Amino acid sequence: MNNKENIKKIIIKKPLTLDCGRTINNYPLAYETYGKLNEKKDNAILAFHALSGDQFVSGTNPITNKSGWWSYLVGPNKAIDTNKFFVICANVIGGCMGSYGPSNTDPTTNNPFGTNFPVITINDMVNAQYNLLEFFKIDKLFCLTGGSMGGMQVLQFVANFPNKTKTAIPIACSASHSAQNIALNELGRQAIMADQKWDKGNYLSTSSSPDKGLAVARMAAHITYLSKKGLQEKFGRKLQKRDDLKFSFDADFQIESYLRHQGSVFVDRFDANSYLYITRAMDYFDLTKQYNGNLSNAFKDSKAKFLIISFTSDWLYPTSENKEIVIALNSSGADVGFLEINSDKGHDSFLLDVPDFLKSIKSFLEANY
Amino acid sequence: MNNKENIKKIIIKKPLTLDCGRTINNYPLAYETYGKLNEKKDNAILAFHALSGDQFVSGTNPITNKSGWWSYLVGPNKAIDTNKFFVICANVIGGCMGSYGPSNTDPTTNNPFGTNFPVITINDMVNAQYNLLEFFKIDKLFCLTGGSMGGMQVLQFVANFPNKTKTAIPIACSASHSAQNIALNELGRQAIMADQKWDKGNYLSTSSSPDKGLAVARMAAHITYLSKKGLQEKFGRKLQKRDDLKFSFDADFQIESYLRHQGSVFVDRFDANSYLYITRAMDYFDLTKQYNGNLSNAFKDSKAKFLIISFTSDWLYPTSENKEIVIALNSSGADVGFLEINSDKGHDSFLLDVPDFLKSIKSFLEANY
Repeated sequence: MNNKENIKKIIIKKPLTLDCGRTINNYPLAYETYGKLNEKKDNAILAFHALSGDQFVSGTNPITNKSGWWSYLVGPNKAIDTNKFFVICANVIGGCMGSYGPSNTDPTTNNPFGTNFPVITINDMVNAQYNLLEFFKIDKLFCLTGGSMGGMQVLQFVANFPNKTKTAIPIACSASHSAQNIALNELGRQAIMADQKWDKGNYLSTSSSPDKGLAVARMAAHITYLSKKGLQEKFGRKLQKRDDLKFSFDADFQIESYLRHQGSVFVDRFDANSYLYITRAMDYFDLTKQYNGNLSNAFKDSKAKFLIISFTSDWLYPTSENKEIVIALNSSGADVGFLEINSDKGHDSFLLDVPDFLKSIKSFLEANY
Repeated sequence: MNNKENIKKIIIKKPLTLDCGRTINNYPLAYETYGKLNEKKDNAILAFHALSGDQFVSGTNPITNKSGWWSYLVGPNKAIDTNKFFVICANVIGGCMGSYGPSNTDPTTNNPFGTNFPVITINDMVNAQYNLLEFFKIDKLFCLTGGSMGGMQVLQFVANFPNKTKTAIPIACSASHSAQNIALNELGRQAIMADQKWDKGNYLSTSSSPDKGLAVARMAAHITYLSKKGLQEKFGRKLQKRDDLKFSFDADFQIESYLRHQGSVFVDRFDANSYLYITRAMDYFDLTKQYNGNLSNAFKDSKAKFLIISFTSDWLYPTSENKEIVIALNSSGADVGFLEINSDKGHDSFLLDVPDFLKSIKSFLEANY
């Protein structure tokens, strides 16, 4: 990871009391924008990234030199047309792409925070990002959107600031993290913590880092982003550059080689402690509990128009969990549309070239602008 | 792990040429039996264990002091009634409960084999276990059965020795390991290999062992054994002995505590290298490929009566993969029944008290004896 000094940041001076009770202030929030804010300031879309994402939504990510995570969706003439809309995305607090996170210096020790960084929540993330509206002098956003953890942030933002957006598109998410998803995140955390080099989170003070543990966590997560059918069609039992099994523990199968690659490239761009903090925030997310068991109360003060999107083969945030959001919205009297998009690409569908998905987003935005 | 000197073993003198090309002989095969072999020797059931199982099917496992893995199924008056049937189960080669495996001494180095142990296959496992018939002087088994990897062994045994069983019950398995299942096994292997203490498999020559890596592998596997719905119903978002979230990385949720426990108890009874070898054997399993792409040819010489069983919430070996076996058996002209049992307990259903499952096994065995 390098060139991070060129990342755009605002320093949030206003104190923010976190759910854990600690108060932070003068903390950095890294962000990126696409398109232009119009004079009426009514064309802004706040996009929220998922666990492993960052503020570099489209174009080339200057840190990784890869395409932004939503390049299929965001850009000139794309589903979220940056000739028309002004897209803002910030790195979540707890993250590792310039926003306040466990790699920052703890003023009480002058060392990186590590696990002394406060455990943050989705609520804390959106409260921090709310400051972007003031920074850009935007009174009301046109749209909030994001998939996976990004979708959770959409829901939390609407609940916290009901009059600050005209529309909202939470995608492939849940109002309350399921036991299976907590289990899968815990698996990732345990993989990181099992790595001796994690050193209770203090590795940033040394020259090593828990790359092996983080790679295993990423492999675990990556399997959950794809569907069984999608994996079978893409990889099946194809061998990796060999005619037959080698009777060894090398990567005989393409799927093994692919997973190892996913693990190894991830450690170059992501911080292990941030992985712990962000997965923890996801696990803690329970909007229903925040509203005393009645999710519809989370939305009762909002006049926003909603579009909820799920994908048929997404087993991480299945349609059933997205429908619970639809039911709560209906019961709150909200204006809500729901689409279950056919796709074999699993949870990852929200990041990929799934034409029905892209068309749905485009037509919803244009019909409501 | 202790008291292993009391484990029953036979030493197989006959050379066995493994799929990898290496030949083994004078190797130990550890086994256990339940019930009595009758005079006609026509009441023997060979049960095959799954990845983390062993020969201790029922009663109390003398090594772990826990119940045998099929205690719900096997015993006096149970579904597999040991008042009537003689149940034999052997530890697979590659395993760690007394059969020939990577913990055995490599005669060329006088150290434990570690990763110098040959990579074995499901075919090798059943060829080794075939020697049990000679040992017990059984000409024909009454039944072959097992779930998961045990079911794969049933299929392979029938293919290799078509006239050696009257009936066969493969449960919750597949004729060819899917890409997703290879991915999940590779995840477990990478977790073990990421542990510095694994030391390229040489840890048995030292005083340490890759417990953390093996625990992570077990946690990953355990998640796949349960269904999303089952996890939600059993654990949901229940907290572990606390009133509220602790804003830390301790086990806040019961599901986290449960997984950590599953990981930590597993390392006391299982060998990390065996985990590598056995998962590799599962991934290599492709009975369809063995029969040149026509699975029905695997069964064409068998006169056995089959019962195939799958479980509705099993996403590891879903009904669709079990049905492929049924289709191949039908096309080979076999006598085959198929049951999909309703259960929320996921892949683990084959080990649990699922009444319809137990009844089905019992009635099939009694009707055909």
